[in-house]
Amino acid sequence: MKVIRGVVVIFMVAVLAEVGEAARSLSSNWKPRLEGGNYDYSYSYCLSWRLAAETNDIRGWRTVPSECLRHVQSYMLLGQYNLDLNLIIFEHIFPYINSIPLSNDGYDAWILDIDDTCLSNIVYYKLRQFGCEPYDPQGFKMWASRGGCPAVPATLRLFNKLVETGLKVFLVSGRDEETLYQATADNLHNQEFIGYERLILRSAANRGQGGVVFKSEKRKQLVEEGYRIWGNVGDQWSDLQGDFTGNRTFKLPNPMYFVP
Amino acid sequence: MKVIRGVVVIFMVAVLAEVGEAARSLSSNWKPRLEGGNYDYSYSYCLSWRLAAETNDIRGWRTVPSECLRHVQSYMLLGQYNLDLNLIIFEHIFPYINSIPLSNDGYDAWILDIDDTCLSNIVYYKLRQFGCEPYDPQGFKMWASRGGCPAVPATLRLFNKLVETGLKVFLVSGRDEETLYQATADNLHNQEFIGYERLILRSAANRGQGGVVFKSEKRKQLVEEGYRIWGNVGDQWSDLQGDFTGNRTFKLPNPMYFVP
Repeated sequence: MKVIRGVVVIFMVAVLAEVGEAARSLSSNWKPRLEGGNYDYSYSYCLSWRLAAETNDIRGWRTVPSECLRHVQSYMLLGQYNLDLNLIIFEHIFPYINSIPLSNDGYDAWILDIDDTCLSNIVYYKLRQFGCEPYDPQGFKMWASRGGCPAVPATLRLFNKLVETGLKVFLVSGRDEETLYQATADNLHNQEFIGYERLILRSAANRGQGGVVFKSEKRKQLVEEGYRIWGNVGDQWSDLQGDFTGNRTFKLPNPMYFVP
Repeated sequence: MKVIRGVVVIFMVAVLAEVGEAARSLSSNWKPRLEGGNYDYSYSYCLSWRLAAETNDIRGWRTVPSECLRHVQSYMLLGQYNLDLNLIIFEHIFPYINSIPLSNDGYDAWILDIDDTCLSNIVYYKLRQFGCEPYDPQGFKMWASRGGCPAVPATLRLFNKLVETGLKVFLVSGRDEETLYQATADNLHNQEFIGYERLILRSAANRGQGGVVFKSEKRKQLVEEGYRIWGNVGDQWSDLQGDFTGNRTFKLPNPMYFVP
């Protein structure tokens, strides 16, 4: 086993060295697109694009750049996405939860988003070019109404830890309450998200609002009820910005789509 | 030339496929550290660590994980760091600047951080294991007092565009005013950052304050003077959070250190 690990490490170092060498030989030629140059080394470009999307430097993007289809596909399917989730959740959120001074009055709370936080839509986005096609509200609604999204495995473990620790878990999602409440509740149940305090979806009064406005309002209501929001986890910055964001926020990766 | 480009693209795709394959073969064995497993595939781990640091999921970190020394070194020196800066600045900040409805009353403003935003400290961090060694305030002060930091090339172009566009540029930094003002002003001048409106450093009254508090106070003063802050660029989240953050904020990458 040790030998296999050693070989893998050597292999990874060799790959890294090659990537670095290629990047160096390319970077001296780099011309920004606005000067009329073209990127034809899509791997490095897509790394840059994905970082800028994850840090919220690129906003309001409607599709993944077409040259990044393979990059995003590889990222989502070949392991790095799950490693990224695992590091955030197991190495940073778990220790944070252990550090919370719980009061046992029933008002210690935590917020989780649903899509691509608790439930994965990778199966759906596989058929939509991993976000290279524009968002299709009807198509997504049909998918969600089937209640067949698999759990994001690391988030399910986070959810169970939160419930076991005694935090009240609120699931807050921009999904339409009227048409998707039952399917969403069923989907959460069939994926074993069991024991949450409340499932809060977008009611008719919140239709057309951006995520920041809608989710801030819902969090405000929880704070007015007396809840202390210790943590807030989502794959979109609009889950984590605005008012009453929580004591700590955690951005999970999602290079497939942007929700304003 | 086209042939060379084609070969490079094929090479990069091959490397990507190999990285993906390696990641897949590893991910099935993945054990989070908290269960007693060890990461020994540092490339994938360091990609995850760097993403989580850049999205502000990991906070208050004092050093780069020692297993990520080579990763951060390669990232900073072999091209990807500069590509990441170039994409953010030339593809996203430049078009945003062009879209600002300037009023020509002299109150359209922009904020830039200094360290690893305008001026690069890579030369210094090369001697400090790219952040694997803890921050050394005296050592950094000696380095900064020499006034020998090179410009971050993409930011110098951004700076010149801002000045030419007619925006008032405020340079706001946590550097100590009393001991580093003249060296910083000289360094900016020798790197051709010429034409800014004001250089704002940390005065005695702000000593010991975190970046969010200190920088929020300085931005508040600017807003009270009548300035409209259209943009705010920094390599630390503490540059970009708090009050009066600006109409748009842009996080530049920096995996070498964390400023609270």
